[in-house]
Amino acid sequence: MEMSKVLERVAEEAAQLRGAGMVMDYIPALAEVDPDHFGIALAELDGSVLGVGDWETPFSVQSISKVFTLALVLAGSDESFWQRVGREPSGSAFNSLVQLEHERGIPRNPFINAGALAVTDELISMVGDASGDLLAFLREESGNPDLEVDENVAASEAAHADRNLALAHFMASYGTLRNPVATVLDQYVRQCSIAMSCRDLALAALFLADRGFRRDGSALLSCRQAKRINAIMLTCGTYDAAGEFAYRVGVPGKSGVGGGILSVIPGRCAVAVWSPGLDKRGNSVVGMAALDHFTTLTGWSVF
Amino acid sequence: MEMSKVLERVAEEAAQLRGAGMVMDYIPALAEVDPDHFGIALAELDGSVLGVGDWETPFSVQSISKVFTLALVLAGSDESFWQRVGREPSGSAFNSLVQLEHERGIPRNPFINAGALAVTDELISMVGDASGDLLAFLREESGNPDLEVDENVAASEAAHADRNLALAHFMASYGTLRNPVATVLDQYVRQCSIAMSCRDLALAALFLADRGFRRDGSALLSCRQAKRINAIMLTCGTYDAAGEFAYRVGVPGKSGVGGGILSVIPGRCAVAVWSPGLDKRGNSVVGMAALDHFTTLTGWSVF
Amino acid sequence: MEMSKVLERVAEEAAQLRGAGMVMDYIPALAEVDPDHFGIALAELDGSVLGVGDWETPFSVQSISKVFTLALVLAGSDESFWQRVGREPSGSAFNSLVQLEHERGIPRNPFINAGALAVTDELISMVGDASGDLLAFLREESGNPDLEVDENVAASEAAHADRNLALAHFMASYGTLRNPVATVLDQYVRQCSIAMSCRDLALAALFLADRGFRRDGSALLSCRQAKRINAIMLTCGTYDAAGEFAYRVGVPGKSGVGGGILSVIPGRCAVAVWSPGLDKRGNSVVGMAALDHFTTLTGWSVF
Amino acid sequence: MEMSKVLERVAEEAAQLRGAGMVMDYIPALAEVDPDHFGIALAELDGSVLGVGDWETPFSVQSISKVFTLALVLAGSDESFWQRVGREPSGSAFNSLVQLEHERGIPRNPFINAGALAVTDELISMVGDASGDLLAFLREESGNPDLEVDENVAASEAAHADRNLALAHFMASYGTLRNPVATVLDQYVRQCSIAMSCRDLALAALFLADRGFRRDGSALLSCRQAKRINAIMLTCGTYDAAGEFAYRVGVPGKSGVGGGILSVIPGRCAVAVWSPGLDKRGNSVVGMAALDHFTTLTGWSVF
Repeated sequence: MEMSKVLERVAEEAAQLRGAGMVMDYIPALAEVDPDHFGIALAELDGSVLGVGDWETPFSVQSISKVFTLALVLAGSDESFWQRVGREPSGSAFNSLVQLEHERGIPRNPFINAGALAVTDELISMVGDASGDLLAFLREESGNPDLEVDENVAASEAAHADRNLALAHFMASYGTLRNPVATVLDQYVRQCSIAMSCRDLALAALFLADRGFRRDGSALLSCRQAKRINAIMLTCGTYDAAGEFAYRVGVPGKSGVGGGILSVIPGRCAVAVWSPGLDKRGNSVVGMAALDHFTTLTGWSVF
Repeated sequence: MEMSKVLERVAEEAAQLRGAGMVMDYIPALAEVDPDHFGIALAELDGSVLGVGDWETPFSVQSISKVFTLALVLAGSDESFWQRVGREPSGSAFNSLVQLEHERGIPRNPFINAGALAVTDELISMVGDASGDLLAFLREESGNPDLEVDENVAASEAAHADRNLALAHFMASYGTLRNPVATVLDQYVRQCSIAMSCRDLALAALFLADRGFRRDGSALLSCRQAKRINAIMLTCGTYDAAGEFAYRVGVPGKSGVGGGILSVIPGRCAVAVWSPGLDKRGNSVVGMAALDHFTTLTGWSVF
Repeated sequence: MEMSKVLERVAEEAAQLRGAGMVMDYIPALAEVDPDHFGIALAELDGSVLGVGDWETPFSVQSISKVFTLALVLAGSDESFWQRVGREPSGSAFNSLVQLEHERGIPRNPFINAGALAVTDELISMVGDASGDLLAFLREESGNPDLEVDENVAASEAAHADRNLALAHFMASYGTLRNPVATVLDQYVRQCSIAMSCRDLALAALFLADRGFRRDGSALLSCRQAKRINAIMLTCGTYDAAGEFAYRVGVPGKSGVGGGILSVIPGRCAVAVWSPGLDKRGNSVVGMAALDHFTTLTGWSVF
Repeated sequence: MEMSKVLERVAEEAAQLRGAGMVMDYIPALAEVDPDHFGIALAELDGSVLGVGDWETPFSVQSISKVFTLALVLAGSDESFWQRVGREPSGSAFNSLVQLEHERGIPRNPFINAGALAVTDELISMVGDASGDLLAFLREESGNPDLEVDENVAASEAAHADRNLALAHFMASYGTLRNPVATVLDQYVRQCSIAMSCRDLALAALFLADRGFRRDGSALLSCRQAKRINAIMLTCGTYDAAGEFAYRVGVPGKSGVGGGILSVIPGRCAVAVWSPGLDKRGNSVVGMAALDHFTTLTGWSVF
């Protein structure tokens, strides 16, 4: 089947679930999003990109940004970085403090909030303006110079950051942060508040499908490093639904509470999907179903 | 045996343990205290007070202040207050976040840090300047108008408050605080940083031994309320060593990481002891031994 | 007020709660008990005993037996026994395995099921037929030679023992049991299945109110040991409601899922109450209320 | 590189780690194994098989058997089976009871011990003699009619089964087992005690690499089902090291405390490796390193 047909079929199926799930409500600026949005985009290794639905509408990437900050940190670090953050699935909700206490301030993996705060802290130590560095990278890879932090979302998120502040102060109490909590939080909030479309996301993630090579042919990561980020996406990318995602979709993926999910099909393409309604674990209901359908139609599960 | 003899015997025994335990080290201003201090004071219902050793030397009361803030809050509240804070032993360390997550932001009891933050938050809502109100109360009951917040300790503690900030933001994320985290923390730190001697503490706590009556004969609490605070001290006053304390000492007690322990012998007296070396659960090693010896000599266990 | 009047007043108040709570249902033989029963008995140090309501009707003592097996074990052990079992409140349900795993097979205290299995295991090592030894002791102290294990309850309980078997095998996996799991379970079930009336229980517990002295004047325990069992009853005797019990009732108490609660007023008397309806933590609803009322009327809280 | 060369290179590297790790010691019959063994076998979709080292020496498959019992159960079940067992990584040790209590007796996934007991329980309900059924299947797929349960290991394991008995009774207490605990345990122990060589295992697992097709061309599972078992192997196959395994090795794998690890390279081959020394999470140290080296040399990570 032609790939444009595949995306259309996926979109037709998705249309039947329209409005399923609950738009996240603990960040007021995100709670206002129309739950009926649906978009999907696929970027191939040659940089060509296809899409259906609201695939060019920007939305708040939220936790999907964690994939890119991790990549930027790993590009400039060695294996010793992994002494600061683990890479095991957490088996807990994305914002849980329980494991953090059992493991004395070392987050389970870079994709739960605690781990992402540690990654941001590392990136700040490396480049200073972490979210600015991230934004520059995303603009270049997506070819979209207009990408911006949504300041409205960032302000709303900063005003409702108690849980993340608890995580950050908790890590600070174990001495596992290098920068002030306020700085780390600010940078973390800004990176989560970047607005991107499915098109932008799929293009920006191509380096993960292409052995670490950026769009301009330079190597951001070694092939091995790229594969390893994909492995972490598969085992930890969708919080306490990572097993479910691997079982149903079968490819590396990273979700965000803005309703986006980014998937990587190693050696082939990157796929981004968006629909704001979330299940109780914080993953887009329609997005999960769409990716499930997509890998069924294409047979592109990694398993 | 005469009571002055009892205290002397207790002090002699305590002298043999001199220097046991570790002075707390996570608040720099407290880490400098000489570990060899030992004092004990006993205040009787008529207001007479006896002491041995460093019983008139002020030290940082730290968590012992939680008894008094709780009393001030209960004096102005009804039973509905207990929907904000539980009264069960926690079975966990004083600064654990684990239970707080399992119980969705409702602290187990008013004497773990999370619970004390909630009590302080309540007192702020009632009187505004919570630590000022507390200080006024303590000055009056102890008859010592010179009691003060140790600003050096308070500043040091505020600069090392990550764990308590984590607890406070965590509760705030569940909506269980009414005042801003920064305000609650500031007031909490100030009340912990009050400096008092064993003499001051024993006198200030007499209302708990005397059915709720203050030194001037007015009732702060009903008899029932006073007994209930004593019950909470017995079951929750020494963190995850409450069972040990009940077993060995057998009277209500509240410890602080400054090395003080305040005990109440209902209907008889209040006893305060101080020695800075702590065991791994945060209770004064020599203080515990001294109170154990004291209740053995007097037979004044409540059991 | 005369003590007989006090018990009548307590019974009148209790009558208004008649039928509250749920009869325990996971042991079929106990589920058939009429929820409207209520009895209370008070035994004084001289052996005189008063009662109201169904105070002479036998019921299944269940976990109340744990007080007596602990006493028999402590009578024949030294402090090293406490390396096998802790004495801290658990903060968890009576049959929880969570803490047991965190603490590598050492139960928190002798009154949660895991701890009681360890106590029974110890008593088996000391006397062989633990439940027979217990029964002989209870007959003598209660002056009731007809006390028996209810074989119907024991059989029903043995057939529904999966949770306790899990606890016992779990401890065995840590090497903390000396006797075979099947033996320990059998003896544990038999001791829980002893049927006693409020009258029997109050008399049998007098040694705890009387510094360790048995009815015949001999010393089962030292005064210190008796006080320490009382301390453990207060901090751990009513599972995760120990704080609540200390707060409301204010005396040492031990409950059983048969609906009984045994209370000790040190130096005065022992009180047993029975009403089968339980709250969600496994304590008799009417029994708790009756004891609350009793200590309010008499002022006999230890605090 | 020719595949035989690859295996030789892997074996050479492995030789340098010879003897690393600790042979498991809690089952006496397994503790006697020589820690210096090393073998690796690779079976291709056409049934050809290559090996190096002790690749034809039988060892105790232990938890690797869980892959095959799961396949046999899924072959005869529908999706409703997943209401009995989850498919999320556990983030805990293989024999932990903590999550089982939090999740009321529903095991996290079929590859932790609790989950495998539930799978065995299901297989017993389907076929009666679960371990016999499994053995017949393994004989046929491996082409080795001599495969047997090692009765010596089975007896030793049955005599040291307290932890698994705890898990089984715990599930039984929630009503989540259909067959008697003793039956489930017996069958579970027998399937774990099957002895197989790397050669046998690689051949027996080919259906997972080949879309569910058995060696005789018949379909045991649908393609989708086979992929899903692979997904569960990747996310849950190596206990609390699943993230590490995905990160380093990057293919589905299932380990056993006998020192074996079975890996599936979807669409290509199955690889089995054996070396008895375990790391602290229960995975073969040399086996992990060998598979890491193997996927590095071949580039056959799924990512």
